Amino acid sequence: MRPATPPGPGGFVGQPNSEQVPRFAGLTTYARLPRRDQVDRCDVGVIGVPFDSGVSFRPGARFGPSAVREASRLLQGFHQFQDVTPFGVQQVADLGDITANPFNIGEAIDAIERGSRAHVEAGTRLIAIGGDHTIALPLLRSVVARHGPVALLHFDAHLDTWDTYFGTPYTHGTPFLRAHEEGLLLRDHLCHIGIRAPLHDASDLDRDESIGFGIISAFDVADRGVHTVIEQLRERVGDAPLYVSIDIDVLDPAHAPGTGTPEVGGLASRELIEILRGITGLNVLGGDVVEVAPAYDWAGITAIAAAQLVYEMITIFAKRAVRPGA
Amino acid sequence: MRPATPPGPGGFVGQPNSEQVPRFAGLTTYARLPRRDQVDRCDVGVIGVPFDSGVSFRPGARFGPSAVREASRLLQGFHQFQDVTPFGVQQVADLGDITANPFNIGEAIDAIERGSRAHVEAGTRLIAIGGDHTIALPLLRSVVARHGPVALLHFDAHLDTWDTYFGTPYTHGTPFLRAHEEGLLLRDHLCHIGIRAPLHDASDLDRDESIGFGIISAFDVADRGVHTVIEQLRERVGDAPLYVSIDIDVLDPAHAPGTGTPEVGGLASRELIEILRGITGLNVLGGDVVEVAPAYDWAGITAIAAAQLVYEMITIFAKRAVRPGA
Amino acid sequence: MRPATPPGPGGFVGQPNSEQVPRFAGLTTYARLPRRDQVDRCDVGVIGVPFDSGVSFRPGARFGPSAVREASRLLQGFHQFQDVTPFGVQQVADLGDITANPFNIGEAIDAIERGSRAHVEAGTRLIAIGGDHTIALPLLRSVVARHGPVALLHFDAHLDTWDTYFGTPYTHGTPFLRAHEEGLLLRDHLCHIGIRAPLHDASDLDRDESIGFGIISAFDVADRGVHTVIEQLRERVGDAPLYVSIDIDVLDPAHAPGTGTPEVGGLASRELIEILRGITGLNVLGGDVVEVAPAYDWAGITAIAAAQLVYEMITIFAKRAVRPGA
Amino acid sequence: MRPATPPGPGGFVGQPNSEQVPRFAGLTTYARLPRRDQVDRCDVGVIGVPFDSGVSFRPGARFGPSAVREASRLLQGFHQFQDVTPFGVQQVADLGDITANPFNIGEAIDAIERGSRAHVEAGTRLIAIGGDHTIALPLLRSVVARHGPVALLHFDAHLDTWDTYFGTPYTHGTPFLRAHEEGLLLRDHLCHIGIRAPLHDASDLDRDESIGFGIISAFDVADRGVHTVIEQLRERVGDAPLYVSIDIDVLDPAHAPGTGTPEVGGLASRELIEILRGITGLNVLGGDVVEVAPAYDWAGITAIAAAQLVYEMITIFAKRAVRPGA
Amino acid sequence: MRPATPPGPGGFVGQPNSEQVPRFAGLTTYARLPRRDQVDRCDVGVIGVPFDSGVSFRPGARFGPSAVREASRLLQGFHQFQDVTPFGVQQVADLGDITANPFNIGEAIDAIERGSRAHVEAGTRLIAIGGDHTIALPLLRSVVARHGPVALLHFDAHLDTWDTYFGTPYTHGTPFLRAHEEGLLLRDHLCHIGIRAPLHDASDLDRDESIGFGIISAFDVADRGVHTVIEQLRERVGDAPLYVSIDIDVLDPAHAPGTGTPEVGGLASRELIEILRGITGLNVLGGDVVEVAPAYDWAGITAIAAAQLVYEMITIFAKRAVRPGA
Amino acid sequence: MRPATPPGPGGFVGQPNSEQVPRFAGLTTYARLPRRDQVDRCDVGVIGVPFDSGVSFRPGARFGPSAVREASRLLQGFHQFQDVTPFGVQQVADLGDITANPFNIGEAIDAIERGSRAHVEAGTRLIAIGGDHTIALPLLRSVVARHGPVALLHFDAHLDTWDTYFGTPYTHGTPFLRAHEEGLLLRDHLCHIGIRAPLHDASDLDRDESIGFGIISAFDVADRGVHTVIEQLRERVGDAPLYVSIDIDVLDPAHAPGTGTPEVGGLASRELIEILRGITGLNVLGGDVVEVAPAYDWAGITAIAAAQLVYEMITIFAKRAVRPGA
Repeated sequence: MRPATPPGPGGFVGQPNSEQVPRFAGLTTYARLPRRDQVDRCDVGVIGVPFDSGVSFRPGARFGPSAVREASRLLQGFHQFQDVTPFGVQQVADLGDITANPFNIGEAIDAIERGSRAHVEAGTRLIAIGGDHTIALPLLRSVVARHGPVALLHFDAHLDTWDTYFGTPYTHGTPFLRAHEEGLLLRDHLCHIGIRAPLHDASDLDRDESIGFGIISAFDVADRGVHTVIEQLRERVGDAPLYVSIDIDVLDPAHAPGTGTPEVGGLASRELIEILRGITGLNVLGGDVVEVAPAYDWAGITAIAAAQLVYEMITIFAKRAVRPGA
Repeated sequence: MRPATPPGPGGFVGQPNSEQVPRFAGLTTYARLPRRDQVDRCDVGVIGVPFDSGVSFRPGARFGPSAVREASRLLQGFHQFQDVTPFGVQQVADLGDITANPFNIGEAIDAIERGSRAHVEAGTRLIAIGGDHTIALPLLRSVVARHGPVALLHFDAHLDTWDTYFGTPYTHGTPFLRAHEEGLLLRDHLCHIGIRAPLHDASDLDRDESIGFGIISAFDVADRGVHTVIEQLRERVGDAPLYVSIDIDVLDPAHAPGTGTPEVGGLASRELIEILRGITGLNVLGGDVVEVAPAYDWAGITAIAAAQLVYEMITIFAKRAVRPGA
Repeated sequence: MRPATPPGPGGFVGQPNSEQVPRFAGLTTYARLPRRDQVDRCDVGVIGVPFDSGVSFRPGARFGPSAVREASRLLQGFHQFQDVTPFGVQQVADLGDITANPFNIGEAIDAIERGSRAHVEAGTRLIAIGGDHTIALPLLRSVVARHGPVALLHFDAHLDTWDTYFGTPYTHGTPFLRAHEEGLLLRDHLCHIGIRAPLHDASDLDRDESIGFGIISAFDVADRGVHTVIEQLRERVGDAPLYVSIDIDVLDPAHAPGTGTPEVGGLASRELIEILRGITGLNVLGGDVVEVAPAYDWAGITAIAAAQLVYEMITIFAKRAVRPGA
Repeated sequence: MRPATPPGPGGFVGQPNSEQVPRFAGLTTYARLPRRDQVDRCDVGVIGVPFDSGVSFRPGARFGPSAVREASRLLQGFHQFQDVTPFGVQQVADLGDITANPFNIGEAIDAIERGSRAHVEAGTRLIAIGGDHTIALPLLRSVVARHGPVALLHFDAHLDTWDTYFGTPYTHGTPFLRAHEEGLLLRDHLCHIGIRAPLHDASDLDRDESIGFGIISAFDVADRGVHTVIEQLRERVGDAPLYVSIDIDVLDPAHAPGTGTPEVGGLASRELIEILRGITGLNVLGGDVVEVAPAYDWAGITAIAAAQLVYEMITIFAKRAVRPGA
Repeated sequence: MRPATPPGPGGFVGQPNSEQVPRFAGLTTYARLPRRDQVDRCDVGVIGVPFDSGVSFRPGARFGPSAVREASRLLQGFHQFQDVTPFGVQQVADLGDITANPFNIGEAIDAIERGSRAHVEAGTRLIAIGGDHTIALPLLRSVVARHGPVALLHFDAHLDTWDTYFGTPYTHGTPFLRAHEEGLLLRDHLCHIGIRAPLHDASDLDRDESIGFGIISAFDVADRGVHTVIEQLRERVGDAPLYVSIDIDVLDPAHAPGTGTPEVGGLASRELIEILRGITGLNVLGGDVVEVAPAYDWAGITAIAAAQLVYEMITIFAKRAVRPGA
Repeated sequence: MRPATPPGPGGFVGQPNSEQVPRFAGLTTYARLPRRDQVDRCDVGVIGVPFDSGVSFRPGARFGPSAVREASRLLQGFHQFQDVTPFGVQQVADLGDITANPFNIGEAIDAIERGSRAHVEAGTRLIAIGGDHTIALPLLRSVVARHGPVALLHFDAHLDTWDTYFGTPYTHGTPFLRAHEEGLLLRDHLCHIGIRAPLHDASDLDRDESIGFGIISAFDVADRGVHTVIEQLRERVGDAPLYVSIDIDVLDPAHAPGTGTPEVGGLASRELIEILRGITGLNVLGGDVVEVAPAYDWAGITAIAAAQLVYEMITIFAKRAVRPGA
């Protein structure tokens, strides 16, 4: 079905006009954008991955995609700080959810890889809404299968480079060690931002460092300021193809109570947004926003933050779409 | 777009199999049913009416359709107490939302009438999810335009036959007086069930009685038992074409905290469900479930109740669909 | 200051017209009634007693008066089941709060006695909003000082006839043993309704019985039905002057989560309301609704229940006010 | 360490005196009872099973044991309706939690079987606090290993005799089909109580019936009354050894919002408690209370209900402990 | 009625002594201050405007005045950072609420203008508690009617200079365009602070700029620091008569979840308070704090923030009241 | 009973391995550490003081110890920013709760002094979890009895050096004036950090200053930055023996909604953590974290913050334990 919303000047179908259709009306899609079946092409796709069987503490991120979509109703079309209409210079669509078996992590990872790969191979850049951080591994596989190994900016309170829990290699604490072992990551172009949780022991840092990760802790962000952090990230990534993975717990629990392993001392949402805007121009190929657990959220503030982060990523794509020669 | 769900034996498209697709996955529609554009015909349509500018106390029912759809993910396909598969013997679909101006009640009522009328005239029986009770008036107009005046079973803590608030004739407290004045209702086939709120003054009862309403209060339900109530309702309605309007505040606040004008002493959800099942076989033409205000809900219990009530109404239609000669 | 609301036909000042003044507007008083300083006489007074230093588990009932007043905005003026306008046949007013020292139970009890006594001696019948159940003792003292010993209907999950906690004789678990010792209660005209909490040991029942209390448990209410219970209560009280004390935890936690020592298996609000209506005509001299702890409430449902219970008590007074020869 | 609480007259260590130690003080155990290491024998053990990886909708029951223990602080020692001191006629203790792998259902089931079996073989009767309903299977295995096949009273909104989800045989929807296949259940001594959720299709009922289950739906409970239900259950079970499994969602969401697959139209807690008391005298060997998901609870009401249900089961054991010749 | 609180040294009636009257006791007024009828004069008046029919997303600000008053109970009388007793150097009072028709925006705006104008013309400086931002227009009219056009400091996540929604010119997104058109604003003395929401399109900025507004975004506040912002604001306003309008959503959702259109990346409450203190000495004539929607608040934190902001504004008036020659 | 957890290399018993035992499993102790009876020595003890009868506004901190312990399940063993394993270089244990009479503040203070003194005299350094701030007085007495008068770093929104409330000298607003009068404090080595609440009057500051307190307000922290603050604190304390008392309301309500007298404009948790780390090396003898009121908390964020603050204090002890010559 074609959407009621007529295409804009560039031929892209965006949002219904919120001065004529209330933002609270209509079946829910991310940012009230068209579904995939309503558009002919899709440059950037938002895709839900409702899987949370990899969590070690509070579950519930399986309801993340629904909650983030619902919260995204508020979003409007013009990004005044980036001076671009992100849904007007590229076709963005909601790709729906990937179906993943909640009772078998291995099967689920395979399904997520298959589900994302089809889109990536068709030329769509994906931003996934989790689900727990386990999903970053199959998403990375899909991106790397098409584009080769990637740099990684990983926003999180936790390293997520642990080896196993209960003998299980695939959980929300281990995706980036697995990704490293599978050769998906570009050594020396990797950085964690926002780290602050206590660790199991000192060897966690050694393992992490051996993979090639840099660490900019939450306290470093406060001490250096976001603009220095941006410079350091841009330098570390350079021109490398880049994947951006955001665990919502990078934010302080004040800003993101709705998550499974909250850690105090985190970033303010304003800091995180400034950093994301600061990496505009880097060669981002895809990303995810994970670990939104709505049962612990209040007034949707965590989901609203996640919806905004997805919007910022879409805008990064938009800025490349409009630049001369991009 | 055709849905992934293949049609069942009768050619009707129902829900995805919840043993293969988690109920928490996928873009949200009522009961995970197809959208209107995914099916060729539609016998019964669930339609959202996100309008709450007619409320006199706590607003927020504009978010009712979204919340009820989200809560309806839990529903499965076989109704064991009615021994029928309500989505398998008739085509049920989610019709999306009607767009209504939140700043102008008159315009909104017109839009709701137009939006519902098109479906009714195409032969679809509608069950609307509110929104506040103001919406019952234009919905009744649509039904009556096609089928003629109707009997009414009105489940509510309040009479909703007041004349005006602040000089305004169209609010959530007045739809049934207006409906009476417009000749939409069949005198002597009208009944309120669950009434219990204090009134403005004694003349409220006189006005209500003059329209032809019977009253079975919440305390009558307790004292007589649901089976006697069912008999009385069946007798009152008889063979008349029937509209069923359910204000969720007919339930006790224990069962439905998420509403705008809660009144203690209400029905248990079990009682209401038994009564609805008890009117199976009556000639129901349409209905609504209104006044779910999610901001006041907890753990979705009010929305879950509303989703079940819609399901019970769909099942009433299903029972007529399968009966010999229906 | 005189209230904007003009007096009604009987010369009594009631509520502002909710069809002209939204119920959500205006400085908060119980049921939007006048303050004491706005009327010349006061037949029935609603008085707050924000004291909760006598609680043994969850505190917070000090915020009960504010929350119940706020919830009472919903109430309208005509009681359709009692066929009376309770604010129109007697002067009802909000007397504000009694100030009580939160750090010294003894001082607080004295202050509550003084604060209530002045009103009782001036001929006002009081309905107090707690606060914890400790306050029933000084309230009883005030009533008995004027009217002599009283019968007591005590709605509660707990007996409240314990002797001491931590050696302290005055707490929310002990008011009725103290009242008995002080000679405030009429033996054989006493009854607990709704009892169900586990006890410390079997001697609790012996002590309670020795005071002269009858017990109608929450399970008895279910098994006998409210109409039998009403008969038993009327018989037990007879013509004796009567005090009615309602601990909101007599209701099931489903109906009243906002309380300090919730016990499952309680009364539905509908049952409690029917019982209160059923004792109309008894010689009620005063009463209280206690133990509303708003921090544990949701969507105001506990406070709304308490507001309604106060309304039902006011209506009992109203029915005596209008009867011939009352 | 020996507990500070001295043993009572029978030599059993019970609760600290709540008139000297506030119920809100002290490290948390079920009902403030001693831990296993603080007593020499243990007749009845309360054991936590924090496992919820078998759920098909809202997860979170892994936090059930903590929440139920915290809620159980309110409980006192004398059961006035059963006229017994359940912690004074038998040694009851808190056995702590069984550790189960959250990432591997098979391993977890084995660990739960091992963890419970040791206690059962040592002569302790277990009441488990879930966790999700998956845990009933290994708990049944432990009981049957010692006592042989059992009758089953299963309180739930759902049948839990489905075959597989996503090809997985062990989930919270399948324990009783598996138990049947493993020969753990006594045909014709099995009954579901409280059933009301929609089913997948009509064959669900056939499968269930072929195992030998009777069904008393939530609506049957309302229509027949609890006393008839009790008779029917006593007749069905007879003298058979009995296991009692309670999914908290047997209660209406009003009474138990804190659960994963809530269904409206459920039992009131008062009904469930009356039924449990009504089966006193049956030969109960063990039981569980499962599916408390605290993230969806409010003011602890679901956890308080679960704590009370465990208390009622302990009391059933106590009544057999004190009866002549038991 | 005269208040119990005796006047202080300057003859001004302030708060009751919180060391003798608990802050949680007494009928609710802003900061426990006297009502208008309890004092002879009123220099500064706090007035509620419970109107929210102009909102485009989450409604509920109609309950703002009640919630902010309740939260303001915490406030004490000495402002240590401004070194003044704001209720001791001028007469501050609670003026109650303005009654506004919730069903007709035009009528409501007229009523708010009338209701506020009477006070302004009597020489009272008003601080209004909303209600949604629609109310700023009639409040501005009242101020300008007496004092002439004003400078405006507008703290908000949104510009609120849109033209229409659904063809309606008066909503919470349009007050300042209307005010400009009506000649109420002093060009070049206008500034938005805290702006950050996405816009409809680029023309929104053009329209806004054409009115003469400067913008200091939320990110500018972070990058420049509050002290630079203060300087810029003081320079922009100069000696002009000034109106200060604060939409609570200028704060980050972490600090103010209880609002209708929350936007991440907002100000911390500490920043906003520092800025308000920094404009002390400017010629403030009136102001408002709007868009507190209590249904979305938690533990009152949004309402507490709003209560403090009102207190800061009262203190700005107090500082002018005490300065030599003011 | 010995814990299942084997001692680490230094012979200290720490946490169970969270890669083998889920953090959500097991009876609750602080950070899953052993109880006192499970270890032979105890260098640092975490002790609960569930007492809140000294509060002047919202009660509920009596449930603080339970909630903070539950929240502390998340904590892991290696502090990456301090490069130490705080549970591996000293024996840390959970000492359970001190029993205090909730109905008699004087008795409670005595019991808290006795309860803490025994541990202090046995050489254990205590970190207490409140309870309200009243408890700081008896805790200080215990420390001073062994070590002599102490310096004090007091993190709070309020001064807590008031004299009396309602004539009562011992409340949560007065502990430090009493401590001063009793000679427990070292003049000129005292500092409040985070102060921001309005005061009663200007004399509050005079009294506070006369005791010898310095004040670094919440706004000073913002203006100076945490590193300057740290320097100033280190200078003020010098080598003096030090007690650290943290009222959780030093944090902004965004970070700590779950408290009794929240004040906007507070510290971010990241700032407070940096300051605590910055005082490492000072001669800390004990401390407390008080005023966590779980009924007002959301998703445990306040309790999680408190658990982390206790962890930071334990780490300060650990750093001294491992330094050469400590």
